[in-house]
Amino acid sequence: MKRDRLIQAYRSGMVAEAGMIAHGRGEAFDYLLGECTIPEAEEAEMAAASLLLNASNPVISVNGNVAALCPEAVVGLAKAIPAKLEVNLFYRTDERMKLITKHLKDHGARKVLGMKPDAQIPGLEHARGLCTEEGIFSADVVLVPLEDGDRAQALRKMGKTTIVIDLNPLSRSARAASVTIVDEVTRAIPKITGFVGEMRGLPPAKAFDNELHLRKAIDRITNSLFELRCAFK
Amino acid sequence: MKRDRLIQAYRSGMVAEAGMIAHGRGEAFDYLLGECTIPEAEEAEMAAASLLLNASNPVISVNGNVAALCPEAVVGLAKAIPAKLEVNLFYRTDERMKLITKHLKDHGARKVLGMKPDAQIPGLEHARGLCTEEGIFSADVVLVPLEDGDRAQALRKMGKTTIVIDLNPLSRSARAASVTIVDEVTRAIPKITGFVGEMRGLPPAKAFDNELHLRKAIDRITNSLFELRCAFK
Repeated sequence: MKRDRLIQAYRSGMVAEAGMIAHGRGEAFDYLLGECTIPEAEEAEMAAASLLLNASNPVISVNGNVAALCPEAVVGLAKAIPAKLEVNLFYRTDERMKLITKHLKDHGARKVLGMKPDAQIPGLEHARGLCTEEGIFSADVVLVPLEDGDRAQALRKMGKTTIVIDLNPLSRSARAASVTIVDEVTRAIPKITGFVGEMRGLPPAKAFDNELHLRKAIDRITNSLFELRCAFK
Repeated sequence: MKRDRLIQAYRSGMVAEAGMIAHGRGEAFDYLLGECTIPEAEEAEMAAASLLLNASNPVISVNGNVAALCPEAVVGLAKAIPAKLEVNLFYRTDERMKLITKHLKDHGARKVLGMKPDAQIPGLEHARGLCTEEGIFSADVVLVPLEDGDRAQALRKMGKTTIVIDLNPLSRSARAASVTIVDEVTRAIPKITGFVGEMRGLPPAKAFDNELHLRKAIDRITNSLFELRCAFK
């Protein structure tokens, strides 16, 4: 079903070809995780909810794959926090920016930033670093689901707290983030929304050790491989 | 470079959308293997060469991804054995069959089977089971690089010796095959061709234990994950 959603979005022009290949990479890692939310991911989702609730300017960065796979969920999370939505594309074209913005509005978003960039993330090629002053540029906490490694690193260098959703715990994005959620995006976003509801008004969660967390996620995959191997007849 | 080749082939109509996603899954497993030919894959490539050389009707089944990624290599292997080439698509359309057939001919193939199917692989939906009597239907040894699980199983049920190239040692195709080459297709095909050159005239290789072989390949991934985890700072 997710694969069909992505293919439809590709045909409509929202998803780039490289986005289809990236989805396949995610599928492979999800398969190794047993296609479920591992306990480590749930801890990271809880930490993410706390960071987003306690931010002064939280922003959710949306790309084609996220918009294609879970537009309702991402709009719902933005409303629950509340946080701003900004479209940010690796392969930026006006056409794709417009399609994704419209798609998010069709799924309930009132305001979507990104169409009129007036700021630049330092250290990135011009088109890839475009963002808005009101949104990503001035954000203190940014949720960047399915982000590429360069941009995840550049946002961290700006001193931002970054939350990445990435099924590959070894990717550059996963390593660059303040909090990495090793989970599939359509499972992760509603879970964060759930924790946002539960944690509102609570004091900020304690500091999150992302390196320890990623090591645990890798161990989870290793164990899963070991079990799959044992089940091999 | 491989990703660009695939995207170009997708734009020309040779590769299906699902083929792009499948390529991404392969990339993830290749990453875990260190993007190199593991010793277990080399053993399987050697076994494959022996089986193809000693077959009475060896056939290489070609789909969109294989044609896009390594047309010269696949034609070269067919000539070296010699073996027949047959186009066999999961998402079969006349347009894609024609494009792939032409692409193989443009890369030196003299004869390409598949456009005029006159036989049916038992147990598969009509369009997916179409093949030629001269080629896959009567083959004793079939090389099916990047094959889907259903067809890999159906060919085995027909009593054929099947050689699958699949980066995921846990996939249904990998498990269904007589010999599974856990390697990236553009590395695997030229290696098989190399062994075909070295092994011509030699007696058939001893029986290949594919289950043991797949367990070793899985161990290789597990070890690689363990090392990547240790390198994590």
